[in-house]
Parts: sequence; structure tokens; C-alpha cells
Amino acid sequence: MSATLTGDLAAFIEAADCGATGLAGADKAKKVIADTFAVILSGAGSEVAPPILAFARKAGLGEVPVMGTPDRLSRPVAALVQGTFGAALDFDDVLSMMPGHPAAVIMPALLSAAQGRAVSGEEFIDAYVIGLEVGSKLSQGVGLKHYFRGFHATGTIAIFCAVAALARMERLSQAQTRQAFGIAASTASGLQANFGSMTKPFHSGWAAQAAVTAVALVQEGFTASEAIFEAPGGYLAAYGTEESDAAKVMPLLGQPWTIVEPGIALKKFPTCYATHRAIDALGQIEARLGRLKGRVRRIVCKVAPKSLRPLPFMRPKTGLESKFSMPHALAAAIHFDTLKIASFTDEAVRIPEILELYEKIEAIEDIACTDGDPDFEKKSSGTRGFVLVEVELEDGTVDSARVDIPPGHPKRELTWDELESKFVDCADSCGIGSDHARATFSRLRQLETVVDISALSESLMIQAKAD
Amino acid sequence: MSATLTGDLAAFIEAADCGATGLAGADKAKKVIADTFAVILSGAGSEVAPPILAFARKAGLGEVPVMGTPDRLSRPVAALVQGTFGAALDFDDVLSMMPGHPAAVIMPALLSAAQGRAVSGEEFIDAYVIGLEVGSKLSQGVGLKHYFRGFHATGTIAIFCAVAALARMERLSQAQTRQAFGIAASTASGLQANFGSMTKPFHSGWAAQAAVTAVALVQEGFTASEAIFEAPGGYLAAYGTEESDAAKVMPLLGQPWTIVEPGIALKKFPTCYATHRAIDALGQIEARLGRLKGRVRRIVCKVAPKSLRPLPFMRPKTGLESKFSMPHALAAAIHFDTLKIASFTDEAVRIPEILELYEKIEAIEDIACTDGDPDFEKKSSGTRGFVLVEVELEDGTVDSARVDIPPGHPKRELTWDELESKFVDCADSCGIGSDHARATFSRLRQLETVVDISALSESLMIQAKAD
Repeated sequence: MSATLTGDLAAFIEAADCGATGLAGADKAKKVIADTFAVILSGAGSEVAPPILAFARKAGLGEVPVMGTPDRLSRPVAALVQGTFGAALDFDDVLSMMPGHPAAVIMPALLSAAQGRAVSGEEFIDAYVIGLEVGSKLSQGVGLKHYFRGFHATGTIAIFCAVAALARMERLSQAQTRQAFGIAASTASGLQANFGSMTKPFHSGWAAQAAVTAVALVQEGFTASEAIFEAPGGYLAAYGTEESDAAKVMPLLGQPWTIVEPGIALKKFPTCYATHRAIDALGQIEARLGRLKGRVRRIVCKVAPKSLRPLPFMRPKTGLESKFSMPHALAAAIHFDTLKIASFTDEAVRIPEILELYEKIEAIEDIACTDGDPDFEKKSSGTRGFVLVEVELEDGTVDSARVDIPPGHPKRELTWDELESKFVDCADSCGIGSDHARATFSRLRQLETVVDISALSESLMIQAKAD
Repeated sequence: MSATLTGDLAAFIEAADCGATGLAGADKAKKVIADTFAVILSGAGSEVAPPILAFARKAGLGEVPVMGTPDRLSRPVAALVQGTFGAALDFDDVLSMMPGHPAAVIMPALLSAAQGRAVSGEEFIDAYVIGLEVGSKLSQGVGLKHYFRGFHATGTIAIFCAVAALARMERLSQAQTRQAFGIAASTASGLQANFGSMTKPFHSGWAAQAAVTAVALVQEGFTASEAIFEAPGGYLAAYGTEESDAAKVMPLLGQPWTIVEPGIALKKFPTCYATHRAIDALGQIEARLGRLKGRVRRIVCKVAPKSLRPLPFMRPKTGLESKFSMPHALAAAIHFDTLKIASFTDEAVRIPEILELYEKIEAIEDIACTDGDPDFEKKSSGTRGFVLVEVELEDGTVDSARVDIPPGHPKRELTWDELESKFVDCADSCGIGSDHARATFSRLRQLETVVDISALSESLMIQAKAD
């Protein structure tokens, strides 16, 4: 056990040069930032928005613009709301090594703290990269059994990504950073039993709020333990397991940088990651055979064993269920020109053509889809083995496609054009027009030239609707 | 493992008749409530107040009066501040079975929710008793090893006291109560490594804020797991240990009521509980020999083995250290007419007469002070074994006194007069005059006749000081 982990992390945060990640690292970071802006907007149009906003308006009006809404909230409450928005559709980033979704915790926390002074795009990228690095390597010291106990690492570990990012951006002293970790560790929380409810995205918001609170409190002179990770009665003792080891953390920092390797997965489609490869395979077939709409006799989608576990709905009845349905993912990909947020709604599961397609689509687990990979059991449903889609058309044509790496995986990074489509769709879902969305997106793409990140988020507010 | 603990608790909260605790129960509850008002005021005069208020004024102005200050804050932030105040001096209640300090979590949460509508004293007492009951019995299902892992049960368990109390006062439906537990469990937190810093009292405030947030969110339609305690990936799985057992909880509810048996300890002196018996013994000697000031040649204070562990300071240099010093506790008890908050300050440890007394006072651990009790190891430093104080005066007189049960322990409940003295001292520490304090205290003593608890807390605000 490192006797000085908390202090060593604080020293790293102060001194690190994330220019070491190079241009490739900065480009990847900008993609995650642009993606997170997109998913926050999608959350503003989601079913989570009305109740959390109703609460927030009573809990703390203030200065921070909330993207996709007409509301300005206090720093902690804005972090709570934008963090919850970012995770509302499960459309945010994935860091398998944590495992968790750090961006919707980090970005809302940074946006709250950045309000009211000109934080440049460069500073914002720098803070994000450092925050991601610290929290992701800390997760390696905590170990995976933490997650198996039921903790949702997005709440219980990504909170430290946000604290580290804030400490960097706010230029805290090392003593302040240590104490901010101390306060934040006493607020780390989030349980997997809340998956499938609005409280899952709330974990991201609560962690963002807690990080903002911890840093603001130390800036006011509040005190905490300066050795919270390694101390007896501290974070690793309480939240860790017998496999936790503080000494694992420091040697991993920047060796390599997480943003570069393994990198971050960004979701291409607004549906369960476990459907992404099948949708992609269908796209490859359409590229060869042309649009399949109205021509399908039968589709068989084969996946590795246990890959259908997160996809229990063969005949979804609601929009929420449709996100966890392989038949719906494929039927929607055939029916709609492009898969959008609107393709996974209560309306979409009642479209007659889609209902007809459900009857023609079969999803099965097949041991052949492991391809003898001895490690496949350790992988998530979105990445284990491979996916094979076999299509038979009414004219007798048959074709098939196999996909191993899902689109959006760090090894198949989304292009800036793909991200733009996602951004425009997310903006549309909360009422922002596509011209404005494209203009804003182009600024995010050139984030290193932006002089004030808050002006950028403010430009994504919308007008209050007349009741 | 009970498959229905969360639902069973929600049903209990709706149906329970805490009139079953009788008049004795109501009187004990009123004492805890009056005591908590007192310690919140003492927190408003403490070193924790400036930073948390500076943060709070930026985070959420609103309607809820904060006692001992001129500030009105939003419901969640007021709960955060008053909860932190309540625990600021470690002068709040003690529930050894948890182990924790539930009142400074419950009461601030209830006060926030009560704002703006007339919640009667009777309703307030009822909600407190139910909340205490539910959380204290839940703690028996969690088990003590949870605490030994490093969790501070005031944050990680008393939060459910507050949710239960709010659910009762707000008349939530059972489904809402279950979901409020679900949200709150995803915010349960607090680490012992932060003891000795401002973050320890912050645990009480954060839990109060989280409870208020959880209940407000379900009232807005937010959703969560309805089986958070017992579900896989739920609270007991993540925060529990191998000794945790959900089935233990329900048979204990109301059998007997916690407020009646074992009851709640309230601290008589503004210093570590482990000094209380020694101070009391000295008082008994003074009752026989008259005031000892200026007459002491030597004092030996004998305590059971390991009882000095929380009292490491034999020659305290600061006010904070003086609270964890047996020599200071006894020297101050001799020097001052009555022990007050002002007796444990940076000024007090520099008073020449007190420094002289330090040299005459010896505190030692003595195996004889266990009196052969085989269970003494399981007891806290404040209650294990007994304390023996031996005094020798300069004229050669010797006397001694033995105390087994500390004053304020449920078996030696503080009288209403003793509580009034504490209340007046706490009010004085934040600038509230004793006449007004006594008048307010008499209303708390008759809390069942109060028609609006908020008016009572509002009457304890103070005017803004001119800068």
C-alpha cells in the first residue's frame, strides 16, 4: 500500500504535462468533449428532464447556463442537472477499464466551475485529460471486485476524475487538492440496483455536484483528511476489497495516457451498446445490396453466448424496452433512413412496418460466435466474441456480415462527421435547430481556439417555451 | 435475507403508531429535539460556520431560515448547513447501537421540508421517532463490521433515519417511500478517515441534504429501485459485510422503540464523551468538599484500559486539542464555575491557572477500572469500565469518587434544567441572548403545543452583523 497516494496524485495533477499525449490525444479528447455536449442536450429532451429541472429550480437558481434548457442554476445544482442529462439516455462515453462513464461527471463539473471567468478550450481539454487520467488509474488500484459488490463506478470512482480535473483547472494547491479528494471521498456513492431507473443517470449528476461542492468548500477554507485514499478508515479500506492496492496507481499514470490507450468508446447509436455491431453489420450489407426496406424475408443475428442478457426484449412494448431489443435495433435500422433518438420511442414500437419486421428477425446466441477466444467471458456483451448478421431477401438473395469491433470503440473511433450527425440529432431532440447545432459543433471541433468555454455552452441554451 | 425489506419498511412508516411509546417516549423525543436545536446553534458559532456559509450563499439562497445566522437558504442547502452545524462541536446525540449521531441528520432534513407549511410540534415529534426507529433497526441488519470498514454510520445509515422521518411527515405513498430509499441509498457516504477535520460534521449535513433531495425528487416523479436494501447490487450487498442480514430488521421494529430502550445519549459537556464521567466524579467531590479552585495539590484520574485512546492530549495547545484532553477537562471543571463552550478554546489553554493545574493532574489507565466486566472491551471509551477520580487538597484532605454511567447516558438522562443550561450556552455562542434563549427553550419543552415548527426555528435566526 502506497503511504502517499493522495499526495502523489495531487503532485501529479499540479505538474503533469498532458501535451505529452500529442495531437492525437488532443483530438480524441475533443471528440469526447463534443460527444458529451451532445448527450447533455439529448438528456435535456429526455423524460428525466422535467422532474430534475422541477427540483433544481427550487433548489438553486444561479449563473450557470444549463444546455438545452432556458435555465440558469447555481454551480452545484447545474452540475447535478447537466450530469444527470449527460447519462439520461445511456448515450454517453464508456471506459471499460473503470468500468464507467466518466465524461458526464467531469464535463458538467468543469462547466460549473468555469462559469464567470474565461476558461479557454485549451485549459478545458487539459483539465479533462488530467482528470480522466487520475480517475482511470485510480480505478486500477481499487480493482474490479468493487464493481461486483454493487457499486456503480461512475458514481464511486469517476467522481475523482472530476475532482482531479477541477483541481487542475482551478490551480488548487497540492494541500487543497488532497483535501478536495478527502471531502469528495466522503460523498462517493451510487448503486447498480438503481440501473433501469432515473437514479442511474442521477449518479453522474450527483458525483458532478459532489465534486464541485468539494472543490468549492476547500476554496472557502474547509478542511478534510489529506490522505483519504490510503488512510485507515479511508476510501480504499471502505470501498475497496482484498484486491485493492494503492501501490498500483502511480506507476500507471501517463504510461500510457488513458485518452490515447486504451482510449474512450463513444456510442454511435442511441441504443444499447450490445446492439451496435449488429446494426453495423446490417449497414455493411445495405452498402452492398442497397436499402433493405420492404425487401426482407428473414434475418438471423447470431451473437456469442450471454450476449443477449442485456437485450431481453424480443417484442418491445415501450421506447425504453426498444433500447434493449435486438429485433427493434435491426428493424429500426431497416425502417428509418438513419437511426436517431426518435427511432427508439413509444411511437416507434407501434409502427406497423416495424412490428412486421420483428416477426422476420431472430436473435440467437451461438457458441460459434466466440471463435475460440478464451478471454471472451471477460468481455462485455458489446464486445465479446463477434456478431454475424445473415439476411435473406424476398427475391432469394442472401448475404451476411461479421463484425468484431463495434463502431465507436477506441479501435474504430467515430469520425468527426459521424459525431456531427449525433450532435445534430441530440440537439434536435431538445429543440435546437440543425444549422445552429452544426455551427456550434464546428466550434467544438476547433475547441483549442475557443477563448471562453462558458460562452459556448451558453450558446446552447434554448428559449423558455410559452406555457 | 428478507426479500421485501424495503417494502416492509415503507409499510411500517405509513402505519406505525408511535403513540405506543407513551408519554415517556414523547418526553425523551422532545429532549433530543431541544438538544439538537441547541447544538445547531453552537455550530453556527463554530469555526465550521464561515466556510460552509460562504459556500452555501453561492450555492442556494432560499426560504429556509438557518438558526443562529441571518441566512435563508434553499431546502437542500439549508439541510446541508444545519446538519453540518449540528455536528460541528461533536456535541450532538449518540446512538451507540448504530453507532452514530442521527439527530443532526434527521432534524435539519425535517426543518427544510417543513418550511412553508404549518407542521405541528406533534407531527415533528412523530416523524423523528419513526425515523429514528427505522434507521436504528436497519443498522442492526447492516451490522457493526460496516463501521469497522471505515464507513461513518452517521452518513451511511442515519441518512435512512432522515428519509423515513421525511416520508412520514410528507405522507409519501409506500411506492414513493421505497423509491426515496432507492435514491438515498445511491447517495449514502461518509468516511472515518475524515474524523478530526471539518468533513466529519459535513457528513451529517451531506446526509441531511441527500435525504431532502431524495424525497423532493420522488415528489417530482423521479424513479428509483423499489427494493434497494435487499436487491442484488443494492445497499446491503455493497455497504454490508458477511454479517449483514436484512431479515434481522423487521422483527426489531417497535420491540421496543429505540427512543425508549436503549434510548439516546445527550452530551452534557462540550467535550469528548470519554471525559464525561471524570468531570462528573469531580463534581461529586466538589459537592462534598466545596469548590476546589486554588486548593488542589494532586488529582489522579483512573480509567479502564484503552479509554485514553481518544484523549491523546495531556498538554493541549489548542481549543480543538483541549476537547480531547483529560487534564484539560478536569482543570477547566475546577477553574470555571460551569463548563461551557468557552471553556474549550484557544484562549482557555493559555490561562495560567489552567496550565498550573495540568501539572497537578494525572490520567492513567488501570486494569482495576474494568471491575472484572468481561464485556468491557466491547464498550466505547465513554462507557467501558468505570472512572475513579482521587483528589488530594493542599491541606491534606483526600477524597475520591467513582462513576460508572456517564451523565447524559440514557440511564442518567439529562434533566430539562440541565438541557436548558446547555441550550443557553449554545445560543450564547452564536450571539443569542439568554432571555430569548430561555423563552424559546420553554416552547421546545412544550413542543406538542407548537403549531408551526418553522416559526420556532425562524425565531432563532440572528440579525446580520454590520461588516
